Amino acid sequence: MALDRLKQAASHITGQVAPPHPFDPLSELEIEAAVALVREEHPDVFFNAVTLWEPRKAEMMAWIRAPDVAPRPRRVADVVCIGRGSKVFDAHVSLTENKVLSWELTEGVQPLITMEDLQIVESVVRKDPKVIEQCGIIGIPPEDMHKVYCDPWTIGYDERFGTNVRLQQALMYYRPHVDDSQYSYPLDFCPIFNADTQEIIHIDVPPVRRPLNKAPPNNYHAAAIEKEGGFRTDLKPIHITQPEGVSFKMDGRYISWANWKMHIGFNYREGMVLSDITFNDKGTVRDTFWRLSLTEMVVPYGNPEHPHQRKHAFDLGEYGGGYMTNSLSLGCDCKGAIHYMDAAFVNRAGQATTIKNAICIHEEDAGILFKHTDFRDDSVTVTRARKLIISHIFTAANYEYCVYWIFHLDGTIQLEIKLTGILNTYAMLPGEDLKGWGTEVYPGVNAHNHQHLFCLRIDPNIDGPNNTVFMVDAARGDGEVGSAENKYGNAFYAKKTKLSNPEQAATDYNGATSRTWDMANESKINPYSKKPASYKLVSREVPELLPKPGGLVWKRAGFARHAVHVTKYDDAQIHPAGRHVPQTSGEPSQGIPAWIAANPTANLENTDVVLWHTFGLTHFPAPEDFPIMPAEPMSLLLRPRNFFTRNPALDIAPSYCSVPSGVAQGSSLVDTISKLAFGEKETAAAQGKAPGEAACCSGGKFGAGV
Amino acid sequence: MALDRLKQAASHITGQVAPPHPFDPLSELEIEAAVALVREEHPDVFFNAVTLWEPRKAEMMAWIRAPDVAPRPRRVADVVCIGRGSKVFDAHVSLTENKVLSWELTEGVQPLITMEDLQIVESVVRKDPKVIEQCGIIGIPPEDMHKVYCDPWTIGYDERFGTNVRLQQALMYYRPHVDDSQYSYPLDFCPIFNADTQEIIHIDVPPVRRPLNKAPPNNYHAAAIEKEGGFRTDLKPIHITQPEGVSFKMDGRYISWANWKMHIGFNYREGMVLSDITFNDKGTVRDTFWRLSLTEMVVPYGNPEHPHQRKHAFDLGEYGGGYMTNSLSLGCDCKGAIHYMDAAFVNRAGQATTIKNAICIHEEDAGILFKHTDFRDDSVTVTRARKLIISHIFTAANYEYCVYWIFHLDGTIQLEIKLTGILNTYAMLPGEDLKGWGTEVYPGVNAHNHQHLFCLRIDPNIDGPNNTVFMVDAARGDGEVGSAENKYGNAFYAKKTKLSNPEQAATDYNGATSRTWDMANESKINPYSKKPASYKLVSREVPELLPKPGGLVWKRAGFARHAVHVTKYDDAQIHPAGRHVPQTSGEPSQGIPAWIAANPTANLENTDVVLWHTFGLTHFPAPEDFPIMPAEPMSLLLRPRNFFTRNPALDIAPSYCSVPSGVAQGSSLVDTISKLAFGEKETAAAQGKAPGEAACCSGGKFGAGV
Repeated sequence: MALDRLKQAASHITGQVAPPHPFDPLSELEIEAAVALVREEHPDVFFNAVTLWEPRKAEMMAWIRAPDVAPRPRRVADVVCIGRGSKVFDAHVSLTENKVLSWELTEGVQPLITMEDLQIVESVVRKDPKVIEQCGIIGIPPEDMHKVYCDPWTIGYDERFGTNVRLQQALMYYRPHVDDSQYSYPLDFCPIFNADTQEIIHIDVPPVRRPLNKAPPNNYHAAAIEKEGGFRTDLKPIHITQPEGVSFKMDGRYISWANWKMHIGFNYREGMVLSDITFNDKGTVRDTFWRLSLTEMVVPYGNPEHPHQRKHAFDLGEYGGGYMTNSLSLGCDCKGAIHYMDAAFVNRAGQATTIKNAICIHEEDAGILFKHTDFRDDSVTVTRARKLIISHIFTAANYEYCVYWIFHLDGTIQLEIKLTGILNTYAMLPGEDLKGWGTEVYPGVNAHNHQHLFCLRIDPNIDGPNNTVFMVDAARGDGEVGSAENKYGNAFYAKKTKLSNPEQAATDYNGATSRTWDMANESKINPYSKKPASYKLVSREVPELLPKPGGLVWKRAGFARHAVHVTKYDDAQIHPAGRHVPQTSGEPSQGIPAWIAANPTANLENTDVVLWHTFGLTHFPAPEDFPIMPAEPMSLLLRPRNFFTRNPALDIAPSYCSVPSGVAQGSSLVDTISKLAFGEKETAAAQGKAPGEAACCSGGKFGAGV
Repeated sequence: MALDRLKQAASHITGQVAPPHPFDPLSELEIEAAVALVREEHPDVFFNAVTLWEPRKAEMMAWIRAPDVAPRPRRVADVVCIGRGSKVFDAHVSLTENKVLSWELTEGVQPLITMEDLQIVESVVRKDPKVIEQCGIIGIPPEDMHKVYCDPWTIGYDERFGTNVRLQQALMYYRPHVDDSQYSYPLDFCPIFNADTQEIIHIDVPPVRRPLNKAPPNNYHAAAIEKEGGFRTDLKPIHITQPEGVSFKMDGRYISWANWKMHIGFNYREGMVLSDITFNDKGTVRDTFWRLSLTEMVVPYGNPEHPHQRKHAFDLGEYGGGYMTNSLSLGCDCKGAIHYMDAAFVNRAGQATTIKNAICIHEEDAGILFKHTDFRDDSVTVTRARKLIISHIFTAANYEYCVYWIFHLDGTIQLEIKLTGILNTYAMLPGEDLKGWGTEVYPGVNAHNHQHLFCLRIDPNIDGPNNTVFMVDAARGDGEVGSAENKYGNAFYAKKTKLSNPEQAATDYNGATSRTWDMANESKINPYSKKPASYKLVSREVPELLPKPGGLVWKRAGFARHAVHVTKYDDAQIHPAGRHVPQTSGEPSQGIPAWIAANPTANLENTDVVLWHTFGLTHFPAPEDFPIMPAEPMSLLLRPRNFFTRNPALDIAPSYCSVPSGVAQGSSLVDTISKLAFGEKETAAAQGKAPGEAACCSGGKFGAGV
């Protein structure tokens, strides 16, 4: 595509084309325009990333508040290129001004490994004579090299090879048949691949060799299950339909649903990014969060034997949650009425590519929203809940991560992550002592202990950007049992600790005190409770980082040392383990530790802050997790506390409402869709209701008569 | 109903009527038969409870294993009666032999307060001159006494009145209009009601008086919302249907669903009881749990000022989760295809009464069960999950507890509890300093801090009754960073501590180590992992009991002192705070502390054990929780670990399956029910799929060609 055409296509600033919203990801045309602008000056580079350089916050907030007055933020591409000799270039390209704003050679870093980078390794490995030799040693003849597979990972960090050469480690597997799960046939050696020269530069070989596993395949594909007796046929279909359509509206990439409104972005690194999240509080549009994203993660494995220490994938920073995103399908990933959004990226050659259906948006019924029955007369109000779910799923080699942002009617935002996919496995000898570092999940298959530690970047905007974070612990009252002030010993309260600077704000989880963290606007006092308007982070899956202080993972994944860090907002601080993660040594630690060290006593009170939350789980594998792992869900909440003056979901029509005075108050008691399972003859309306109450059920209109 | 007729009706032992399963709750006829047998000997008592005296475990296990050989356990009613002068009688009545087996006057206890006991108090309160006087003092004239309401609670324990007289405390409220929520108008004094004489014997009056709240009503009923602008109309209906019916089968009160089978019981105290829970593991029916029930709870409030220390309801032991159960309705409480079960109880007069639709059984779609995509070729298997939900909801005065037992296809059992309903509130003066013990959730309304601590009784039967409990912590490996054994510091493992006796087994939660507890059969070793077959308790909402050691709640709710207790199985040990809970002083503590003290070093290894788990949450109220609280869910899991040799849900047909060899493997990619939200023209099947892959989607049959 000629540069001129691209320039023209991106010429929305002339008014010919509706301009993208400043938060919108770069379109295919914009990506290719940025590539073309770079190519004019630097024709010989490959592209690692071309993504939106998000508008600076001050500028963007000004424009969002007064779009007719404040200047519209310009469109800028954030570009990472790779030249020969593993050279890395960071660039900014203005699509508004059609020019390269900056172009820098960045020394001593390696940008993330793309899917294309990954795809190359397997073919190189299969042809490498040293790899063929190693395969022979463990029982794979040269003619079977087409049955050898590898999951190429970034090398993480290996002090023998440093940072300047772009490297991958090939975790090796074997498939007896092309359709067999390779994870039942892990190989015991690990080639190192040079991405610049595309050759194997080293092979790590263990001191004790482990021949190729002889166990039969352990497959989960349909043919294998059919062979074992087939699928069960007794699960009857459940249909979820929305005959009147969905309840949300899209305006560009802004979604409105119930009282919520927000912008849905997407980038190669974080995947989904939610921005400018507001809640309509009885006509007043109130800010809640400026930006929410899962921004980093680390998966340390617990086997100390070389070279397994290198297994500690930063799946977002080293591979990109966006790049690895699945294309989703109706009925496979979500049910009901679905809206999909695509995601555009650059490829190595500089062409725009699109993952169709990268984001899924749908609603789900969510059970009871609230209910109360008066025990005196059985008068009752019951209201059903609904949730809006914005999700994407990414595959990181063996594992899949399903990420669900869930918006609730009561003002709660939930992040749910489901872990599924396949365990990373390693070879073992029959009867080998695994020393507690792993579990034999199938004969000859050692699945190592590991943690999944996610870092959630929360940019609060609780009634505006100037917020303060408090750590909140359930605490016992002061007086001892028998004292005048606490005679019966039952006094307890919420102990709030203001996190005043980044050093002090590095805090850990405490399950015993049900520790939470409040993001509060101290200048916005709730008129009833006299407490500041807040959102509370409620997160209960918060293991400690198990790799030890001073060790490799601790150094590289500084963000994971504490459950919570708080920093003063800085436009440049998005990536808590650094902008370029692969092959960082952690000396010094990038990202959060560096930012905090730069100003450990910066004021965090009543100012624009960012809360970084590390959460996740520790996984000690078991045979139940193999050959494919049942989804393991985990969840955290952002809950409004003292933000509203009352339950903000009272505007949801009840399923049923009756009041003591006995006047019709609600819709019909029985929905016409639900059925009794076994077709009992008596209707539900007639069941269990006092005769006098039946009259309450007939009113189809609300509010009559009171 | 004449005794003879009752005897005849219960005469299933003669073979005329199909006998109830020994686990089945007593039927209405059985209840009335038991009453009649008692009445023959004791005509002048009232009935507090007539419930199934569950068969002794040894006898029952023998019969379940060999029903044709072992004797069928007899039907016995467990009866609690109240005579004049607050006398309490505990009795066993054999319905098999038609006789009273035992009849004992039990001194110094009070059985729970029934709904009937509760209903009486309000009318007495309204007429009591001392109450009328107190109402006058705070601004309610005598002619408005019909606007005065009370939630009668058990007195808990008050040392001034002791245990021998049956007492209730009346938490006082006011309603300007009969349909107004009384919880916005709490009164500041607390009458004490003698249930025997049905009179007010005392009134606790605070030193500083708080006049009746003058704030306008804060209502959530339909008429109130209509007046404020009405309900939102933009939430479109979501229909959930099962055109081919449900996937579960009922055989009496045994339910079979997928690989699960269990008996569903119900009693006045615990509500749902699940027994004899088995999982069909490829044709082998394997025991998992002998009995699961939520068996006790305590809700301590955190305000130390007299008489609020008395607010610490044992909702199950003092009122009965079964007695307080809601009658459920289609569409109001659950959606889809529902099967209900009723619950029969005795009333005070000895008649059988039934709550219709006390238990709800239904299935739900549960999102992705597992998914994996091969990044090389996008071959993918994705399978949808399903869950079976057995639920009941009970109303404890102001609060509601929604209890969901959820069975998953992967062998996981989940207990979810949703808390909703209305905060317990107390009066306050304008501007009063609440000292951190409560929150002003609405002008003049003080909602006190409180905890909801539930006790789950888990009777494991992991491949048989002889089990051992281990505490499991994520732990760092021994070697320091730089050492040969842990050079990079990344070693970690699951540290297992065997809980060998009840004293040692009293253990607390540790969020930092992601502490869990395994119930294991040490004689059933997983052939792959070489670890014992286990179910793991994964519970993350486990606050400490905040009332202090030695204090009133600590003494009365001994079960809540630790997250986990383990005891040797004893048929008599069901109620962890004692059989009769109201007005216990906690000196000595009943239930678990007494059982453990009796034999603190009893062997718990490889024997029949019971695990008692206390979990819940600490609630610091906020205005968002008022005037009715959005449901707050909490959840725990019982997960199979080293119990199966592989993912036990591989027999679930995938939504889609393709394999690298490109041969049709799965059902259609697109389900015919889900729709695109905005009717995009291109079909989902055509989206984002490589041309070569389209062929994979056409196969409707599994297993062709591999």
